[in-house]
Amino acid sequence: MNYTFSDKVNDMRPSAIREIFKSLANPEVISFAAGNPSALSFPVEKMKNIAEQIFLCRPTDALQYSVTEGYAPLIKQINERLKENFSIGNDYDETIITSGGQQGIDLTTKVLCNEGDTIICENPSFIGALNAFRSYNTNLVGVDVEDDGINLTLLESALKANKNVRFIYIIPTFQNPSGITTSLVKRKAVLSLAEKYNVLILEDNPYGELRFAGEELPTIKSMDTEGRVLYCSSFSKILSAGMRVGFLCGNRELIQKVVVVKQVNDVHTNIFFQMLASSFIDIYGLDEHIASIKELYKQKCGFMLSQMDEKFDKRIKYTRPEGGLFIWVTMPQGDTVELAKKAIDNKVAIVPGTTFCPVQGERSSSFRLNFSTPSDEQIVCGIDKLSKIINNFKG
Amino acid sequence: MNYTFSDKVNDMRPSAIREIFKSLANPEVISFAAGNPSALSFPVEKMKNIAEQIFLCRPTDALQYSVTEGYAPLIKQINERLKENFSIGNDYDETIITSGGQQGIDLTTKVLCNEGDTIICENPSFIGALNAFRSYNTNLVGVDVEDDGINLTLLESALKANKNVRFIYIIPTFQNPSGITTSLVKRKAVLSLAEKYNVLILEDNPYGELRFAGEELPTIKSMDTEGRVLYCSSFSKILSAGMRVGFLCGNRELIQKVVVVKQVNDVHTNIFFQMLASSFIDIYGLDEHIASIKELYKQKCGFMLSQMDEKFDKRIKYTRPEGGLFIWVTMPQGDTVELAKKAIDNKVAIVPGTTFCPVQGERSSSFRLNFSTPSDEQIVCGIDKLSKIINNFKG
Repeated sequence: MNYTFSDKVNDMRPSAIREIFKSLANPEVISFAAGNPSALSFPVEKMKNIAEQIFLCRPTDALQYSVTEGYAPLIKQINERLKENFSIGNDYDETIITSGGQQGIDLTTKVLCNEGDTIICENPSFIGALNAFRSYNTNLVGVDVEDDGINLTLLESALKANKNVRFIYIIPTFQNPSGITTSLVKRKAVLSLAEKYNVLILEDNPYGELRFAGEELPTIKSMDTEGRVLYCSSFSKILSAGMRVGFLCGNRELIQKVVVVKQVNDVHTNIFFQMLASSFIDIYGLDEHIASIKELYKQKCGFMLSQMDEKFDKRIKYTRPEGGLFIWVTMPQGDTVELAKKAIDNKVAIVPGTTFCPVQGERSSSFRLNFSTPSDEQIVCGIDKLSKIINNFKG
Repeated sequence: MNYTFSDKVNDMRPSAIREIFKSLANPEVISFAAGNPSALSFPVEKMKNIAEQIFLCRPTDALQYSVTEGYAPLIKQINERLKENFSIGNDYDETIITSGGQQGIDLTTKVLCNEGDTIICENPSFIGALNAFRSYNTNLVGVDVEDDGINLTLLESALKANKNVRFIYIIPTFQNPSGITTSLVKRKAVLSLAEKYNVLILEDNPYGELRFAGEELPTIKSMDTEGRVLYCSSFSKILSAGMRVGFLCGNRELIQKVVVVKQVNDVHTNIFFQMLASSFIDIYGLDEHIASIKELYKQKCGFMLSQMDEKFDKRIKYTRPEGGLFIWVTMPQGDTVELAKKAIDNKVAIVPGTTFCPVQGERSSSFRLNFSTPSDEQIVCGIDKLSKIINNFKG
């Protein structure tokens, strides 16, 4: 029979770069395309011991239905960490555990946006967020990102020009895909503009704990006194991505609506791993573990940049991130979709910039490289192969 | 600041019976209000051993990002079980792993329904599904359930009277909340009516494996040759509810759209527990374990009914379910919201029928009792207390 779909999802298709991701199953392919944390970053032995204890001591709590809001001790630990490390937490704030950071983005959109409402986001931005916004048939307006973050003039123009702007979506720290960090001046300015035009901000900070160079900057949420900023993050990059445990923090009134909507979405997040994360923090703390991840990524990023410095043509520009997982490479000219195809023919996977454009199909002369997952050997070989393709690429 | 919400979620509120559920935290309260599987039904030791093996042998696969479709070996096992036990599986069918059965219902609604579209469901029906439908601002039309399932005359009237009916939502086996099983004649008739009016069916079968009396009946999906039926279920009632692993099976074209929408919802379901469920099936199989759950529930249901037979006034009617988790009690008159309040004052929790009405706030002279979670002692004491309240209730 013939099927018809809802307007909001009708135009949604599997990713245009699906072929690239399919090719990753081929072990000969060197992948710089992932957004995965390093497998070396998983504290397997510690998690194994905690899991055993949970099965021994509290199996019923860990296997039975639980509350939608999330595991109370974990919420308390998250709130303490948000307070200590990010100065986040007003009296009116509440935190809900989500099934990964992604669910926080999805539910926020569902709670705030009617079809046709506008969301302003960085251009480029995180594909998972852009597609979540699209799945509610919202109007996406991208604002270009500069070396120190979003272009403020264009942001104000976008706020002026668009009706029904519901929120600004921003990843201020080690942005995906660009690796760029928004400066303090721009963080303040974005909040001021949100106040001036009375829109909310969804601040996404999955990489905020992964700074391996430079100075910490305050989160936008920490400067918010009105409850204008929703803040989402997750344990995906600091403990385990596969367990799908994230969180969303914001004004109680907003979070309580998110709770109602999460309840009909998946009832609650896997409770066993909420308890596991909580015990991990309780027994081992996160600081030492995160320090080891930062050291690993510092080395990997530095090593990859050194290979790129050596091999890439000087007309090719790229970011030098102070944390996170990504380097953003910009060609002098041309569309990188073709370049990504050539790369995959040579068994190197990269993600072309068009993937991250709020306007679908927009050309981009940039592409994203991930440094957290490939081995040093793969970095040497992959950057060498890639340099031969891009140094000769005419676009 | 003041917040405005999307039209679709604006009217959604925390459950009206929240106070009842809050009271469950009080250990003095005997709860017949849950929808939980018995804690005795969790195969803790076996799950513990498998978890240990996963941490030992495949930690990276279990902690890293995974594919949205779900863990391939588990999908294969589910499809084999659906084929063997439920005669489900056409060439065009595919199965996606969902974060509990609830997510299958939510994503199906998102994929198929625009705001204002109509969903026809049983009256009463599962509150989690009704609220998922409401969260997309759909028009809910309830059709009364009789002893042998949905009233066919009213179903056809509803199909005739409503424009844009997208699907019929039905729980044909051990329905929640009524415990009623739709007869074979009515299953065939529902499918015929769906064909006649060209609407889809979402068949929800979370309790289908839990028959402890009577004869198995074919699923509606097994009679479908056109790809008209989507079928959702989960491991919540047969392995663990807290792990949030369910599945949705239907025509490839529908499932592939669901995959795209799930990707932006939570990327994928907790992969560790998908692998754990798969290993459980591989090593131990599900049949022996499910047989023990059925034996347990048969005893519990029988024991509760015997207490009710002894203590309840003869004018009070109730279902005698052949499986599942629930008994549905109908008073000669009156609204059971008051009755539930009186019960909770006497430290017994039940769920009043209005909770399960597709039309919100509709009065109901029925209420739901759960027999899977209370102990035998609690059943004796709780039914005794409850009988004193309901035998004297004037409504």
